[in-house]
Amino acid sequence: MVAGGAAPPRRPRAGDPDAEELAVHESDADVVVLGAGPAGEVAAGRLGEAGLDVVLIEPRLVGGECSYYGCMPSKALVRPVELLDEVARVPGVRELLSGTIDPQVVLDRRDEVIHELDDDAQLPWLEERDVRLVRGHGRLAGELVVEVLEDADAERPAERITARRAVLLATGSRPAIPPVPGLADACGWTNREATTAETVPGQLVVVGGGPIGAELALAWSSLGAEVTLLEGSPRLLVKEEQYAGEQVAAGLRAHGVDVRVGARIASASRDGERVAVTLEDGEVIAGDELLVATGRHPNSDGLGLDSVGVAADEHGFVATDDALRVGGRDWLYAVGDLNGRALLTHQGKRQARVAADRILGYATAALGEHEPDGLTSPRVTFTEPQVAAVGHTLASAREAGIDARAIDVASDGNAGASFVGKGAGGTTRFVIDPAAGVLVGATFVGAGVAEQLHAATIAVAGRVPLDVLDQAVPAFPTRNEVWLRLAEKRPRD
Amino acid sequence: MVAGGAAPPRRPRAGDPDAEELAVHESDADVVVLGAGPAGEVAAGRLGEAGLDVVLIEPRLVGGECSYYGCMPSKALVRPVELLDEVARVPGVRELLSGTIDPQVVLDRRDEVIHELDDDAQLPWLEERDVRLVRGHGRLAGELVVEVLEDADAERPAERITARRAVLLATGSRPAIPPVPGLADACGWTNREATTAETVPGQLVVVGGGPIGAELALAWSSLGAEVTLLEGSPRLLVKEEQYAGEQVAAGLRAHGVDVRVGARIASASRDGERVAVTLEDGEVIAGDELLVATGRHPNSDGLGLDSVGVAADEHGFVATDDALRVGGRDWLYAVGDLNGRALLTHQGKRQARVAADRILGYATAALGEHEPDGLTSPRVTFTEPQVAAVGHTLASAREAGIDARAIDVASDGNAGASFVGKGAGGTTRFVIDPAAGVLVGATFVGAGVAEQLHAATIAVAGRVPLDVLDQAVPAFPTRNEVWLRLAEKRPRD
Repeated sequence: MVAGGAAPPRRPRAGDPDAEELAVHESDADVVVLGAGPAGEVAAGRLGEAGLDVVLIEPRLVGGECSYYGCMPSKALVRPVELLDEVARVPGVRELLSGTIDPQVVLDRRDEVIHELDDDAQLPWLEERDVRLVRGHGRLAGELVVEVLEDADAERPAERITARRAVLLATGSRPAIPPVPGLADACGWTNREATTAETVPGQLVVVGGGPIGAELALAWSSLGAEVTLLEGSPRLLVKEEQYAGEQVAAGLRAHGVDVRVGARIASASRDGERVAVTLEDGEVIAGDELLVATGRHPNSDGLGLDSVGVAADEHGFVATDDALRVGGRDWLYAVGDLNGRALLTHQGKRQARVAADRILGYATAALGEHEPDGLTSPRVTFTEPQVAAVGHTLASAREAGIDARAIDVASDGNAGASFVGKGAGGTTRFVIDPAAGVLVGATFVGAGVAEQLHAATIAVAGRVPLDVLDQAVPAFPTRNEVWLRLAEKRPRD
Repeated sequence: MVAGGAAPPRRPRAGDPDAEELAVHESDADVVVLGAGPAGEVAAGRLGEAGLDVVLIEPRLVGGECSYYGCMPSKALVRPVELLDEVARVPGVRELLSGTIDPQVVLDRRDEVIHELDDDAQLPWLEERDVRLVRGHGRLAGELVVEVLEDADAERPAERITARRAVLLATGSRPAIPPVPGLADACGWTNREATTAETVPGQLVVVGGGPIGAELALAWSSLGAEVTLLEGSPRLLVKEEQYAGEQVAAGLRAHGVDVRVGARIASASRDGERVAVTLEDGEVIAGDELLVATGRHPNSDGLGLDSVGVAADEHGFVATDDALRVGGRDWLYAVGDLNGRALLTHQGKRQARVAADRILGYATAALGEHEPDGLTSPRVTFTEPQVAAVGHTLASAREAGIDARAIDVASDGNAGASFVGKGAGGTTRFVIDPAAGVLVGATFVGAGVAEQLHAATIAVAGRVPLDVLDQAVPAFPTRNEVWLRLAEKRPRD
């Protein structure tokens, strides 16, 4: 185990005329990681555990967008209503319940989950792995060289770190506001405010019917807000199976959300305490707050990419190969949202493990040929019903040239669903490639289906033959018996 | 599609002196299935769907022990307490709850689940598949010949059916009472009474700490009974990982059950309304009712096996090969509890699909070489915490000659468990075969882990290489992230 911690700074040489001017703290490390979100943390931790001397640079909170402004608080906000729905389906328990959710209790619990926006709790994990944390804005300043600035606008760096092995970029993404007239000014909430707000708006207008918009619409509605959800496409969750977006829309409506699909926005404005969104058809939707959840922008600006002859793509993403290397360089990696493969925490963490392994000398470490990635990554939307999917939808499989076939089954049409998620509805779809004899995708829509996803992820990633899937018997009475439909309907020899 | 329904009876010939004596209704069918539990139903349904002319014989309720006296009512009884535990872990919902479970509400719900012991609801499914149901006791009377008696003790058959293709035995099992002095007389409850009782006993003594005893101890305790659970072995759930039995015992105790392990029973007695069990150490445990849940006995007696030269084994089970054939005969199959492979509904149904496929002419239909079966079958105990396991335990893997290694992880030690099962404890163990590079077993203990099992079942059945399992990324934040420990700890090239 190599000793961790910072190497002694290289002092400017005595007699150097620029010594005072150049009094930049100089240091070195095996690996420098930029960004301490989930991907950066996993990479730094894995490298540190392996005995490497690692520096991790973060301008904001260790733990990243996901921990404070994303997955974690949104799940904290939505979990109570999900559980209440289940209670309402179970005689013996539902009779014991009275009243409605106290928003303050839920917001307090959310504050606990996000540690009151304090990252102290994250630090011991890094310390145990001998990762040196540097707070500041990191940028490339040449091959294997990283400068740390107090903030992105600082005139000169406070520290210059030379990496012996590699630099790993994991700077993540930030909310993007689409160029609709007035929208940027009217928008009071992005995911950051919508996950950390301390009061419940009376009327909330949500622009964007993807996973973030849908989850937060449900969450704030459950806390008492009157929510309108606007989506320009003909359905919610446009990247998922068509029925998934429709079933989520129905679920949101049943929870009191006014869901408008095909609602294209012409402009937005804010007038004191009120916001207004004007649709292309002229209708005006007014509210007390406006959440824009329409997409993300990668944090690639100010990264110093040009200093090493690398450029981001037109969307700002930093492309990589399957070993997560940037521009074929063996010393430069990009993982997580920054590379644009899949803006999902778990995919960023997976990429971090691969990149770390590569840096550690596992020469074949790379994303697998059949590994779910990009749009086929495993993904879960925590609405009521939930949507958990991996691999292809039927449409994306056919676009990919697969002569795919869908096998549909009611998610709650089995004995297991007599007890959990009873009558909650939702459809499970298996997408198979009959020619190859494998599952290429699965979508589960229903109550609490998130944990059912991993079985499909293994089947898809492992390209487990359909006749072997028959031998994987779902236990009775669990809702995993949806898999029996494959055994019944798959093509046989 | 072959027309279903009964063939016209063969009338005795005129002038036959024994005509009146022999007025047995004669019929024929492609396949005769004995026993309409889950396995028999699945086989009959699959054969009927394929166009075969099928007769299904059942002396009791269509749906079998599982539907009325087993898995289904026990889950109905235990689900409320499971959900109450989760409610207690979720701020925002727990504040809305007051009071304790009303047993009558739970018993009414249980009655709904078991359809008040009426099997009418099962019949349309059979009718849609053109399966002819005959109520009575079936027994073999020669090759491809089955007789139906009004009951097992009837002097002569009411009907004689000749099968053109096959006879499939699926007669299941019944509770077995161990030969402890007085136990058979003192025992008021087997699984049948314990799943259908209409009142809650004040004090309930449960003998047997396997899945059935543990589930029903929790269920009746949650309904207000004072429950003592006696297990002769040093721990509950002896076939599972040692820690699983220990964690379930701790969970039962936390729910008020007096769990006694290593409690060997010397005798039992009943005196009017009270029962007493005397342990080998002299202690007497008294109660208002006694449930014996120590094992099952196959329903192979009275099956007429000798008429075709077949004998059950010393435990009464009817052995089969991997195509579920009995004694190598191409026309005789045994599926479900009767063959003793695994006394689990889902395994019986799996065997039924295989046997049906074989009968339908799929010559290679058979249980797979690496298919989890017997003790390695997927299995779930619905206690608090739940135990969901598949494949080998560490001990059974080593007994099987595998140089196995265990990778343990806290079931609630991930972000997903911040929201579901928070603080409920429990351990997940992955058992790997490092030489083969595959997972050979997994045990999940924790709150609501049942649906997490199928991922492991696919990995084990499919012998998915460990490095491919790395490519199956668990979604964040779900509790499936327990799988990440494999990616961290598995041996690498």
